[in-house]
Order: sequence, then C-alpha cells, then structure tokens
Amino acid sequence: KYNSLNIYRILISGKDPVQEVCELACIIKKALTEEKRVSTKTSAADLVTETDHLVEDLIISELRKKFPSHRFIAEESTAAGEKCVLTDSPTWIIDPIDGTCNFVHRFPTVAVSIGFAVNKELEFGVIYHCTEERLYTGRRGQGAFCNKQRLRVSKETDLSKALVLTEIGPKRDPDTLKLFFSNMEKLLHAKAHGVRVIGSSTLALCHLASGAADAYYQFGLHCWDLAAATVIIREAGGIVIDTSGEEMAMLIAQAIQTINYGRDDEK
Amino acid sequence: KYNSLNIYRILISGKDPVQEVCELACIIKKALTEEKRVSTKTSAADLVTETDHLVEDLIISELRKKFPSHRFIAEESTAAGEKCVLTDSPTWIIDPIDGTCNFVHRFPTVAVSIGFAVNKELEFGVIYHCTEERLYTGRRGQGAFCNKQRLRVSKETDLSKALVLTEIGPKRDPDTLKLFFSNMEKLLHAKAHGVRVIGSSTLALCHLASGAADAYYQFGLHCWDLAAATVIIREAGGIVIDTSGEEMAMLIAQAIQTINYGRDDEK
Repeated sequence: KYNSLNIYRILISGKDPVQEVCELACIIKKALTEEKRVSTKTSAADLVTETDHLVEDLIISELRKKFPSHRFIAEESTAAGEKCVLTDSPTWIIDPIDGTCNFVHRFPTVAVSIGFAVNKELEFGVIYHCTEERLYTGRRGQGAFCNKQRLRVSKETDLSKALVLTEIGPKRDPDTLKLFFSNMEKLLHAKAHGVRVIGSSTLALCHLASGAADAYYQFGLHCWDLAAATVIIREAGGIVIDTSGEEMAMLIAQAIQTINYGRDDEK
Repeated sequence: KYNSLNIYRILISGKDPVQEVCELACIIKKALTEEKRVSTKTSAADLVTETDHLVEDLIISELRKKFPSHRFIAEESTAAGEKCVLTDSPTWIIDPIDGTCNFVHRFPTVAVSIGFAVNKELEFGVIYHCTEERLYTGRRGQGAFCNKQRLRVSKETDLSKALVLTEIGPKRDPDTLKLFFSNMEKLLHAKAHGVRVIGSSTLALCHLASGAADAYYQFGLHCWDLAAATVIIREAGGIVIDTSGEEMAMLIAQAIQTINYGRDDEK
C-alpha cells in the first residue's frame, strides 16, 4: 500500500524513493486509460476528476496518521473551501494530479507534486511523472535529482537563444486570453527560439530544473503547482521569482504584461 | 548497425520493429546529452545540427543500397537544394529529427519519421520517439500501433470538449505571429479545453493517433513532418485534411485564419 511517510523518511535518509511512490502513480496511470467523470471548478477549462480527490485523500490521510500536528494545503481541499494560508507549522503542499486537463484527455503529461515547508521555508519537494516514471526530488541544501541523476538548470541567459515554457491557465475571458497571447507573441518577437505549452506547470518546471528549457513564466500559478518544483529548481541552481526578478527573468518580465489572478491566501 | 531495410521488411511481415530502429534512435539519444553545433536555415528559429545530417545520411545510404531505384524526399537534402516533388516512383519521405529546436535544447520530445509512398499513395509510416522509446507504425489497411498497442483516435467531435495541438513553425515575422496567436485565441474563445505546443509536429500527430488529443492543425507543415504520421492517423481511424475539411476539422478551419507558407514542391 502507498505510504507517503516513506517519501519523507527516504528523502531524509537519501535512499531511492522510486519504489515508494510507484503505487500512487499506478492509481493515476491506471485511471488514465479509463473513462472519467469530469467536473468543472472555476471555469469550463478548470477540470477535476474523482481520481484527483482519491489521490489527494490518500496522500493526506496517510500523512495525517503519521504526523497528526502537520498542516496541509492541497488543491482539491482548497477548492472545497479549506483555508490556504501558510503558517510556521510543518505543512505539506499537495497537487494530487498536476495536468488534470491532460489527464482527462489521456495526454501523457501528468504528475503528482508534494512539497514540504517548515517555518514558511520549503524543505523538500517530490514530483512524479506518472507515465514516464521519472521521479524528481529536491531537498534544501542537498541537490535535486531525476531518478538518480543530478539536475542542473541551463546556463543560457540570452533570451534570443532560449526555449521558454508557459501555461495558459484556467482563466479564459477575452481580456485574459488577449494578454496571454500577446505575451507569447512578445517573447517570439524578442527572438526566443520557441515557446512550449505542455499542460502541466509542475512538469514544465521539472524541464527547467533539468536544463531542457531555459525559462518558465506563468500568471495564476497556485502554491501547489509551485511548492515542490521551487525546491527542485533552486537545488538545480535555478531561480524562482515574481515578475520583479533579474537577468533573463527580468527581460521576460519586462517583455510581458501581468495577468491578474488572486492570491491563494486571499481566497 | 542500423539497417533501414529491416523497418520495411518487418512492417511487411508484421514483426516487432522496435529493436531495429533502436540504434538509429541511440545516435540521437546520445547526441541529446552532448554540446551541439547549431546552424540556422530559413529563419533564426529554423535550426539544424550535425546530427540531423548524420541521421538523414545514414537512413538514405542504407535504403539506397537496398533499393537503388527508389527516390527520397528528406528534410535536410531539400534544405540543401534537392527537388521535393512526389512522383509515382517508390519514395521514402524522411525527417531525420523532428523537433530539432527541442533537440538543441535537450527538451525530450524528439522523433525520427520515415514514410513510404508508391504511386503517390502513402503505404506505411514509422515514427520513433527517441527518449520514450515509443515506436509508432502504420501500414495502409493494416492498422496503426504504438509498440504493440493498437491505436485509435478519440471519438470527440465537440470542439468545446477538445484538446487541440498545434505548432508555431519557423516563420516569425510580426504578421505571421499575430495570425498564429489570434488562431489559438479563437480556439480558446470557442471553449476548446486547451491548446498544447510540444515542439514536434510528428509526435503531436502521434498523440492524435493515440487519442491523447482530439485535433491538430498547422500551417507550413512539410511533407516529411506529415508523411509517416498521415498513415498512422488514418489507420487509427482519423482524418488528415487541408483546411476545407469536415466536422470538428471544419469548425477549427472556420475558426482560424490561414497562414501562408509555400508548398514544398514549388520550392
């Protein structure tokens, strides 16, 4: 049976956690091939399935047994009305299925993302690519890995040689869409090699950590999209910033216009 | 040593060809991890590497030995000035590395695509996803497969429930970019679930064949991007049409504006 505690323990002790998350990913992988009952959340493009709930409940219930005092911030619990405020308490930040729209369409770019913070500082992150069986891990001060391979971000700082990743997000009103596409257009005007949209923020950020892409930007990212990936990117030598950042991040931030999404902790 | 003839023979006899393309993909997979000398072709975003040339030369020289009378249409030979006209002769249509920009950035979405036509009719297609070791094959009248699994396209005909794929293409002048992004915007206005841009037309078309996405459109596709994938999609029950097509294809065709690229056989 899947036991989230092992992720925690194994990360601490530095052993290979692939086996441990296997069963959880198996639930998702199996569900990928099945018909799904799909519901919508904030918009017709903001999808959720029974599997999102099932996987989230599984992770939280296992962790709660072992760590009754820990707190949880998780995508579907938040959607169901739970508060989303980070405190100093040890907190697990969970996206049970990142790339739900992909998942619904059986598009094989889907991941589980679990981050862990103490005193508002991210301590480690685990992201599992369910169909390609790639486990990304990062622990503060101890590096980032994909399976057993050390991750390093790309050294590219020239936007005109960069591959840039972004995601569309669920907000689909005409003004947001116009802004979204005008931002992509500006980056290509600035001669970025290309822009990719793969449908999973978490896995896009993993590509960044592994150096397969040079930059990523998105508006309306939730903390569960970002928590685990932030540790992994930082430990791979990258930076995660808001749009007042530096260097290539600054160039991208200057080239694009902000799309306003509310903060998770204000909801 | 890689022997393209085996692809042909094995497809005819229906045996598993995975082993046979392995060495070719190994060249690409190995090169993915190495520093690359990159040149540009029609634009700063139209990239080519030594590996594109190496793999194309390998495929053509092996095939030429076995089939001296056959003709070849291949991406890099065409870029070097060879004519690109389909005749009734048996013709191999080759993209040595589809997703060269991904390849340059080590973004793991890269494929080899080989199609075969006789009397201007596509007979079979082979596409190999180099990093995920997925071999897509289609033979006219005999179905399409990914490794040993039969492929079927999605049954979705409602654009508002569809996941749509497209690619940006190398044309990056302001008018083309404007048209490109306005097309994506129109599809999302029409409530498509999402649009994905993965950087490989051939692999996007394979996702279509496997039902992981519901529609794909692109302007400026070359015959080598399309030849193998066309057989695979048709054998998976899908349709490949120009922008005067029917049903969801018609809806997409009506929603978007044409971006003009020249024909391969007029160059």
